[in-house]
Amino acid sequence: MPSYPLLHRIDSPSDLRRFERRELHALATELRAFLIESVSKTGGHLSSNLGTVELSIALHYIFDTPEDRIVWDVGHQTYGHKILTGRRDAMSGLRHFGGISGFPRRCESEYDTFGTAHSSTSISAALGMAVAAHDRGEDRRAIAVIGDGAMSAGMAFEALNNAGDMRDVNLLVILNDNEMSISPPVGALTKILARMLSGSTYNAARRAGEKVLGVAPPMLDFARKVEEHVKGLITPGTLFEEFGFHYYGPIDGHDLDALIPTLQNLKKLKGPQFLHVITRKGQGYKLAEADPILYHGVSKFDHRAGIQTGKGGGKLTYTQVFGDWLCDIAARDDKVIGITPAMREGSGMVRFAQEFPDRYHDVGIAEQHALTFAAGLACEGFKPVVAIYSTFLQRAYDQLIHDIALQNLPVVFAIDRAGLVGADGATHHGAFDLSYLACIPNLVVMTPADENECRQMLYTAYRHDGPAAVRYPRGSGMNVAPDTAMTALPIGKGEIRRQGRKIALLAFGSLLPNALQAAEQLDATVANMRFVKPLDTALIEELARNHELLVTLEENAVIGGAGSEVARVIENLPQRPRLMRLGLPDHFIDHGDQAQLFEQVGLHPAGILAAIERTYACNS
Amino acid sequence: MPSYPLLHRIDSPSDLRRFERRELHALATELRAFLIESVSKTGGHLSSNLGTVELSIALHYIFDTPEDRIVWDVGHQTYGHKILTGRRDAMSGLRHFGGISGFPRRCESEYDTFGTAHSSTSISAALGMAVAAHDRGEDRRAIAVIGDGAMSAGMAFEALNNAGDMRDVNLLVILNDNEMSISPPVGALTKILARMLSGSTYNAARRAGEKVLGVAPPMLDFARKVEEHVKGLITPGTLFEEFGFHYYGPIDGHDLDALIPTLQNLKKLKGPQFLHVITRKGQGYKLAEADPILYHGVSKFDHRAGIQTGKGGGKLTYTQVFGDWLCDIAARDDKVIGITPAMREGSGMVRFAQEFPDRYHDVGIAEQHALTFAAGLACEGFKPVVAIYSTFLQRAYDQLIHDIALQNLPVVFAIDRAGLVGADGATHHGAFDLSYLACIPNLVVMTPADENECRQMLYTAYRHDGPAAVRYPRGSGMNVAPDTAMTALPIGKGEIRRQGRKIALLAFGSLLPNALQAAEQLDATVANMRFVKPLDTALIEELARNHELLVTLEENAVIGGAGSEVARVIENLPQRPRLMRLGLPDHFIDHGDQAQLFEQVGLHPAGILAAIERTYACNS
Repeated sequence: MPSYPLLHRIDSPSDLRRFERRELHALATELRAFLIESVSKTGGHLSSNLGTVELSIALHYIFDTPEDRIVWDVGHQTYGHKILTGRRDAMSGLRHFGGISGFPRRCESEYDTFGTAHSSTSISAALGMAVAAHDRGEDRRAIAVIGDGAMSAGMAFEALNNAGDMRDVNLLVILNDNEMSISPPVGALTKILARMLSGSTYNAARRAGEKVLGVAPPMLDFARKVEEHVKGLITPGTLFEEFGFHYYGPIDGHDLDALIPTLQNLKKLKGPQFLHVITRKGQGYKLAEADPILYHGVSKFDHRAGIQTGKGGGKLTYTQVFGDWLCDIAARDDKVIGITPAMREGSGMVRFAQEFPDRYHDVGIAEQHALTFAAGLACEGFKPVVAIYSTFLQRAYDQLIHDIALQNLPVVFAIDRAGLVGADGATHHGAFDLSYLACIPNLVVMTPADENECRQMLYTAYRHDGPAAVRYPRGSGMNVAPDTAMTALPIGKGEIRRQGRKIALLAFGSLLPNALQAAEQLDATVANMRFVKPLDTALIEELARNHELLVTLEENAVIGGAGSEVARVIENLPQRPRLMRLGLPDHFIDHGDQAQLFEQVGLHPAGILAAIERTYACNS
Repeated sequence: MPSYPLLHRIDSPSDLRRFERRELHALATELRAFLIESVSKTGGHLSSNLGTVELSIALHYIFDTPEDRIVWDVGHQTYGHKILTGRRDAMSGLRHFGGISGFPRRCESEYDTFGTAHSSTSISAALGMAVAAHDRGEDRRAIAVIGDGAMSAGMAFEALNNAGDMRDVNLLVILNDNEMSISPPVGALTKILARMLSGSTYNAARRAGEKVLGVAPPMLDFARKVEEHVKGLITPGTLFEEFGFHYYGPIDGHDLDALIPTLQNLKKLKGPQFLHVITRKGQGYKLAEADPILYHGVSKFDHRAGIQTGKGGGKLTYTQVFGDWLCDIAARDDKVIGITPAMREGSGMVRFAQEFPDRYHDVGIAEQHALTFAAGLACEGFKPVVAIYSTFLQRAYDQLIHDIALQNLPVVFAIDRAGLVGADGATHHGAFDLSYLACIPNLVVMTPADENECRQMLYTAYRHDGPAAVRYPRGSGMNVAPDTAMTALPIGKGEIRRQGRKIALLAFGSLLPNALQAAEQLDATVANMRFVKPLDTALIEELARNHELLVTLEENAVIGGAGSEVARVIENLPQRPRLMRLGLPDHFIDHGDQAQLFEQVGLHPAGILAAIERTYACNS
């Protein structure tokens, strides 16, 4: 194991700020090597962190953190920042149960000024901090570091629009332009950025940078000169200038000799500033440079040999089940359109994008637009399928209600990552979708219990003449191979999977296997409810007649979840069995292995058993 | 009553398209007069509709509606469109129970291609329609008409970013620039648009327009010439060109001789086109021109005398209670910051904006940014208060969860229009907030039953060290004058308001008066629950011990609402009384008087009584 002697001198950014400038290059090399070694052991995000090595060093070297506030957009590129802010040793527990998070968290470090994970929040948050500093008469800086993908989201635009109008607020937005969100970049903004970088433009900027560096800083009017020189030579960042920002760049984000003096000077400037930095995901690690998407988020691997792909043999995931279904249904019906808000890989749409390029729409990190765009297509008789993560659908909640459900438009929602996702933690657990979906009129909500059911439910949603959602968890399920044939399920009908006595477990989706296991001990009946909305009222009434205790099970917040409406059915019965609702508790759940998390929240078979035995003991 | 002879010849746009062009000026005059007379009788939106008279005529005159699709953003400016598309006589029932809606609705007319009301959806929807036409090989046009205020929302930006990248899709975006959203415009975009219109620019455009009109259309290369002439003379709409649109304008949106030939030529062009039109809210009605905000949304009035203001004597509204509280608390604590997403008037913040201009932030129609901006401020020890309508908070659901609740940041939410709003209808009823808020960990949710309680709850939220929401309905309540003094309520505690027997009514907020009335007949106990979260479990248990039937009452969807958690408390009791949950039904509710709507959903006192008697008869 290499010893990382420079890195070991840094327990906080103030240690870093004691370094000579000439030492920083070697430090960057060490940090990069440490990152590769560390992430190859824990898993986590790699490409993006290799892209921000120099930026992390330069920011903490120049700015007076934590007094100056850095807000990292998305935050999966903050491992370097974590290592430089006292969490070097903690990296061995990254994203593991009880260990540090893969994202910034306010509770983890004073250097994590704002918790991020969902994209495009950084400018808004940093603007709030900058306005606070202004109102208090404090001179601190607020800095948002945002990727080009994240910049395409409407929220970032809203923040730019607001910030550019505040002339006396000290906000620095750093666009970390690596020409790639998780999926390749899309949309007009990508082309605008590409024009800024094209040929002479970026090269002129590089020359200008070199020229500027020939002048020994500090100089009183250095900042002004940077502006004159750099801006005079290049097509300026018109878009950002239009919004009232002073635009600088683009500069090479791996060149500390460009980054350091530029940041030094920007630190002196007042008002909204915009720095355009070019980086490369995977920088300095040849394997990741060659395939940054493969190395975006990784499991443990041998960092010398690289990730071994194509071994196969893994279980089929729900994501793959969806991706296969989408291709199959698209082959049958040319009205099927696939829409993703920048999650082609995560949502399993790579093959669809290849096979049906004309019907594949990656709309950018733009969940709001994704849904209403789908609504427009549905108005014209198309069958849009929106693939989206449970927590990202929260970004388009109003569009779901106002544009789709209110007009009863036939849009299919393939909601992935519904439930506990594991290592990504609280920001990514799909804990609320059943609660926020169940109250929406006209919407059909389905929870598959296995892979085949997922496929058949997607087909059911496709066949339904109104909005319909299928929500499924991260990873694989009961390992039930999907039938090639597609058969629509009867809407609002569940099924009995095990006939028992006294106790009936009503499982919604992914908890069915745990319910079946628990039922063996209890000799309980198990129902696979399938539909959260409309609910199988007749089945509930039947179970209520023949059992003393009904237990609802869902991988969703128990508050407002599927169990809530089961309770209402029972309330109205003349003879009411007891009811217990099991689901996720009313607090945010940290990261960890999915299995560990299930145990923590008591939704593993033993936890279900224990909860039932407690209740049953009390009440019977 | 004037006879409107030209208007009476139009029962559909095909009638309009038979008009001579020279007749259109007179038609516009008639349409304007009709609008003023009609809206003065029914109430509704006025200023915005006077601003779109010529645009409505020109669009239906030039485009082949309904084959060509017009999507009106927000849609409160569509009265002219409604009148020209067969709904002239129906205008007498505008926004009234059983009458036509104040917004476009697909179920109302084939000319209403997309239901709108919430801002900034039009480009996304029209893009969906344009992609559909392209994929089908159909030549129809899709047109989005969007205001400058609506253009500031992130969603519009997301759509522009996506659309500008589609070179072969026939989408026309018309920016209806009247320099005013409901509140005066804010943000950098406003300044960008103002620059486009400044001095020489707009005047040059007007001259160019005149010049162009000297040439008799049709000419083969007319379109190209318009482009050359108009664009050569003015600073082009760089921002929109950057996104890949061809930009035309600005032109005078009240000048049919500019609008008609421009639209005629734009109709021939392929790809994403952008037309910048300048209109004036209230155009042609001097009173509205002078005070477009006063005439934005009106009740019945004498259109000759104008709206009589300052008569006073009306009941205090919840909106005013909030506005007064905000000023009072801001006077005490200089850390209080008021934030509105472009709803200064509607949210009661006019006085706050005047008295505390430095702490007033209108962030534009930008709900997502509004919340995360507030989160940034809260990180720095400020006390941000976000004033927002219940349905517009749907736009920022993820920010509420991910940026505020997850970090447990002390942001106060003043949620107005929670419940049935009346004439604005389904798009504006705040029917879901209790359901979508209750599942969020860390959040305190309060429902005031009267005006004073609203004030004290806002203070309670302000004092609470975490996120807290107070949700109150449109209009006034029980007429309980707010105490000047502010006293924080104990978090999670309700109160008994009437002691009765057998039946207990548990009212959450605005339904308390109806509960009290119903209780007189039943001799029921009435609890004012106050807190949806945390719930007063002890009070519920007490009521459960002493009553046979508990009835929850809330002006929110019954699915996942406050009653859902009351049910869970009861489920866990050894002795369970019966429970009935009353709230809004599982369908969207149309427009009408608030009182009529309450009757329709059975939440008026007689409805509550009837529901209880039905249940009680069955089960006891």
